[in-house]
Amino acid sequence: MRCSVCGKEAVISLPAYHKAFCPEHFVEWYYKKTRDFTKKLTRPGDRIALAVSGGKDSIALALFFSEYSKEFDVETFLFHIDLGIPKYSKEARRFVEKLASDLDMELYVYDLKKETGKAIPDFRKGSRPPCSACGVVKRYLMNKVPRELGATKLATGHNLDDQVENFFKNWVSQHWDWLAKQKPILLGDHPKLLTRIKPLFERSELENEMYVVHNGYDLPDFRCPFSHRSKSKWRVIADEIETKDPGFKLSVVKALEKFDYPVKTQELKECKICGEPTSAEVCSYCRIMGIKQT
Amino acid sequence: MRCSVCGKEAVISLPAYHKAFCPEHFVEWYYKKTRDFTKKLTRPGDRIALAVSGGKDSIALALFFSEYSKEFDVETFLFHIDLGIPKYSKEARRFVEKLASDLDMELYVYDLKKETGKAIPDFRKGSRPPCSACGVVKRYLMNKVPRELGATKLATGHNLDDQVENFFKNWVSQHWDWLAKQKPILLGDHPKLLTRIKPLFERSELENEMYVVHNGYDLPDFRCPFSHRSKSKWRVIADEIETKDPGFKLSVVKALEKFDYPVKTQELKECKICGEPTSAEVCSYCRIMGIKQT
Repeated sequence: MRCSVCGKEAVISLPAYHKAFCPEHFVEWYYKKTRDFTKKLTRPGDRIALAVSGGKDSIALALFFSEYSKEFDVETFLFHIDLGIPKYSKEARRFVEKLASDLDMELYVYDLKKETGKAIPDFRKGSRPPCSACGVVKRYLMNKVPRELGATKLATGHNLDDQVENFFKNWVSQHWDWLAKQKPILLGDHPKLLTRIKPLFERSELENEMYVVHNGYDLPDFRCPFSHRSKSKWRVIADEIETKDPGFKLSVVKALEKFDYPVKTQELKECKICGEPTSAEVCSYCRIMGIKQT
Repeated sequence: MRCSVCGKEAVISLPAYHKAFCPEHFVEWYYKKTRDFTKKLTRPGDRIALAVSGGKDSIALALFFSEYSKEFDVETFLFHIDLGIPKYSKEARRFVEKLASDLDMELYVYDLKKETGKAIPDFRKGSRPPCSACGVVKRYLMNKVPRELGATKLATGHNLDDQVENFFKNWVSQHWDWLAKQKPILLGDHPKLLTRIKPLFERSELENEMYVVHNGYDLPDFRCPFSHRSKSKWRVIADEIETKDPGFKLSVVKALEKFDYPVKTQELKECKICGEPTSAEVCSYCRIMGIKQT
């Protein structure tokens, strides 16, 4: 297998694009592809919060933006939530701190335990993992804190494989409004809701991994103890289709980008406790945190 | 493998339903499932044309309606087009004629060559097969002729596997309006357009085959010489997913039944030559038949 650009030995083959690359030209190709995609999502003067968990997709996101912000007039900072999960959170935080220092990027760490007195493991109920509470906490904080830090947009590392998995899930569960919200840019429909962008919408997990590795980073070997270790059913299915029909995943997400199903817009109010946008009287963050009106 | 009803040896396993059946209880199950589905598509007093090509799905359709029309107040007749394809059309027609006589069902055969002077092979262009012309001819005649014979609805044998294949095709080609038209009932949006129903929308090809066989019929062994002998890419993919995740195909079509994407309705006029509904000045049938205004 030879690099499509220079003919040297290739380290990655991308059948969906009929290309193979050596490390150097892969990094170049990845950056260009992602840049051209991201140009449609950002504006000059943007200040973009990059949500970095320490997972490989989020590292790829940070690495990409460390280049992109030199080329375009956008400011970025890393935003990390220390979830207080023993061992895992410490390792993730350390990784992100080193990354920020290496890349000379501004980093804001929100320490959940310090700020609220609660850590994610406190949300376990018997043998039930705290994942749904963790989702609520992250969605809330990833909007509120970056906004207060002056962000105009929030970028996350959601990748191609995530989108295809959700495509199947949302179709069979008949959630066409959720399908219609699987977009690389989602405008906040409330003044306090940040516009969310997904610059890696068309990048596969493998591409992100290779981008991390060929930028000189080891892939993180820590993992949330509450996360499933096995691939989801839909992920396995999508991978097999992709092997049979290279480019399948890309066609699915390109269709998602254009899917114009009319979403009923939900009227958002402000939580009567914290003032953050919500469709209920009290937002789910205040509810699960047990915050009472004073 | 034992029959879920009587415990005798089963001849078919239906993992999507967590069931297996002996011939007798399979036929009973198939009929009940299809009856409950078809009740939502028909009205007392309906006169339904059953489009029978002679293929296994259409035979299953005829067999099903020969029971259904005894139980419900609907009239049916078989409608067959003799396409004039050497050997194949003769065999198909003979099969359908025997079926009609066995089931004591009214049959109307439209003989393309006799009626128009043209047969399907006349539409070949060099090495290009006549399939797209055949599609135009069938769509046109299956609406016009049954309507003139007093039909209120046209039923076709489209099955579960056809729907899933088209689901993939229509999604990746971004034809959401076509997806939205993959419905078990499609009202004609012109007074001259018959309402089309697909009673076998949730029945798999395998179920149809077994229904034919266990009603005492051999599966037809003739096949249109122009048709592809190999399964389509999407069919292979869908079959593999179904093996991994029994019930996948059914979840996809159940979502199709509910999919409420707003279809832009196309204003239909009447063809200025033949008067049949069309979106153009002259309908595609008149165009490919070379019929000129007199």
